[in-house]
Amino acid sequence: MTTKVSVPLSLKWEEDTLYLLNQQLLPGIVQYENLKTVEQVAEAITSLKVRGAPAIGLAAGFGMSLAALSIQTDDITEAKETLVEAKELLAKTRPTAVNLFWVLDRIEKQIQQAASVEELKTLLIHEAIRLYVEDESVCHRIGEEALKVLPKDKPVLTICNAGSIATAKYGTALAPFHLAAERGEFFSVYACETRPVFQGGRLTTWELMQSGVDVTLITDSMAGHVMREKEIGAVIVGADRIANNGDVANKIGTYTLALCAKAFGIPFYVASPLSTFDRNTLKGEDIVIEERSADEIRTINNTPVAPSNVNVYNPAFDVTPSELITGIITEHGIIYTPSEETLEEFFSLLK
Amino acid sequence: MTTKVSVPLSLKWEEDTLYLLNQQLLPGIVQYENLKTVEQVAEAITSLKVRGAPAIGLAAGFGMSLAALSIQTDDITEAKETLVEAKELLAKTRPTAVNLFWVLDRIEKQIQQAASVEELKTLLIHEAIRLYVEDESVCHRIGEEALKVLPKDKPVLTICNAGSIATAKYGTALAPFHLAAERGEFFSVYACETRPVFQGGRLTTWELMQSGVDVTLITDSMAGHVMREKEIGAVIVGADRIANNGDVANKIGTYTLALCAKAFGIPFYVASPLSTFDRNTLKGEDIVIEERSADEIRTINNTPVAPSNVNVYNPAFDVTPSELITGIITEHGIIYTPSEETLEEFFSLLK
Repeated sequence: MTTKVSVPLSLKWEEDTLYLLNQQLLPGIVQYENLKTVEQVAEAITSLKVRGAPAIGLAAGFGMSLAALSIQTDDITEAKETLVEAKELLAKTRPTAVNLFWVLDRIEKQIQQAASVEELKTLLIHEAIRLYVEDESVCHRIGEEALKVLPKDKPVLTICNAGSIATAKYGTALAPFHLAAERGEFFSVYACETRPVFQGGRLTTWELMQSGVDVTLITDSMAGHVMREKEIGAVIVGADRIANNGDVANKIGTYTLALCAKAFGIPFYVASPLSTFDRNTLKGEDIVIEERSADEIRTINNTPVAPSNVNVYNPAFDVTPSELITGIITEHGIIYTPSEETLEEFFSLLK
Repeated sequence: MTTKVSVPLSLKWEEDTLYLLNQQLLPGIVQYENLKTVEQVAEAITSLKVRGAPAIGLAAGFGMSLAALSIQTDDITEAKETLVEAKELLAKTRPTAVNLFWVLDRIEKQIQQAASVEELKTLLIHEAIRLYVEDESVCHRIGEEALKVLPKDKPVLTICNAGSIATAKYGTALAPFHLAAERGEFFSVYACETRPVFQGGRLTTWELMQSGVDVTLITDSMAGHVMREKEIGAVIVGADRIANNGDVANKIGTYTLALCAKAFGIPFYVASPLSTFDRNTLKGEDIVIEERSADEIRTINNTPVAPSNVNVYNPAFDVTPSELITGIITEHGIIYTPSEETLEEFFSLLK
């Protein structure tokens, strides 16, 4: 059986242009913008047209390529000064995005190696493409690992959008579904809408539909009911940060899913690249949770859904303790029963 | 300490007029409509200006009063024919609302007793008022029972709107908070917004703020995180139907809360009048769950929050098994560890 599938991409580099999916318009409008300057890339990051830590980093990488291509002078010192400004511009866009700075550091190393302006342009474009290919490869391997453990005869539940459009391609938690779809294999996925920003409803459903995956949208509150009534076989989610003891910070709502999954004995998987592990954070309690604005919950597209002056608690993330996690699925294999010990063992084998 | 409080009312009868809160406009606009005819009452029920099974029933009771008051003839037979039409009109408004039919039956008995048109008018108004007073009394007693078990030093979590505006006054799950506020006592309440229709965000927050109760709005997905981080002391919810073994059908999301509460050992209470017990339904699995339209989840006030053609699962209720319920709080006391046996014992003592 062959299936016409097309895993949606957040960004694509061709010659001297970055084509970037405007995620703010999804799912109503699918529009790729043609970005020609680093200023356009910075604006796209700031205005959330591109989202997802890996995708933001990759966009910044290509933003540096565009800055290099714009250089008119043959003076290498002058050229490097232009790139310092470009880097500062991009660094200001989302100051808490770890991948962004990691990418800018990788690009910086290339800048330092360049002896001529021509070499500078070539090195920066090559590095941005290398970062892109590496990320796609990591996601592909995470997807392959996930396929080894996810049940195919029962539906799988997910939250938020740890998807293709948040990465180079395939995503993390959604990678197994895209891979399976490419091979004409069947998966049934339930997507939590993910209040307050609806990444599940707006992005995950759209993305999986593009790939031909059977996806059903539910409200976050339905998790327990759906686990029982639809006989969910596994839960798979992404991660924003993983502490050294295996505690996982992820989109608000993840912890509630983990508690429900535990009650049913449903396997609960976290799909995440090694770059998300923060070995310097000892445990989940040490992770500072960002609190966002009250109006994000009180209104939807400026329509009130609560009193305008009601007290609101709006944490962006929650922390799922490692004892609720069956396994963390990485590009180098699965860490079962995550803990300080199993993480230590896993990372020592990688050295 | 005295606190200026005002428990909001869904409806109020004065002389020949039914004043009815248009809940469709909440929380933005607080508007009571002056209803003078049974047709206006029927329209208010159909268009969901009044909601909540008890409040719908009470509105119908006063609708029959308005129909009686409109009678011009002195011919009792002719007058009763007018009331048959009024009853049929009201019965068609919400065909699944049990309280509505129970109220119409009570009114019917008064109609049969009347010997003159004048007596007919008096009996019907008295019966509608009696139903109203009875409901307020039931809610008051439920609130008093709940106050015996709810912790005052820790916040309490609730979902949907089992509130004053769904009943004559005070509500069921929200009754203890209103009673405490009237006495100047302090409660801290977390209200789940209750997707997809936002009864928690639109109604419960507004209602508790009117009474001066400290209420904080959260998304449904935050339940687990808030139970841990805010040290929730108890969960209290209403009920749509209670089976003979103590299983409880209530607003979708209730079961997820119960699973999370169980994980933390947090007491989980259901507040409900005896009229909600359905002794003919043996267990929760026998309760048919209404599935509502996909667009209720795909769009909010006509704004899309998901692809317009995405598959949706939208059950209106879920069933919480009795083993997750600490106690069912009724107007005649609390049924602890609800089960077929404890319910049988409770009801046999009432006889």
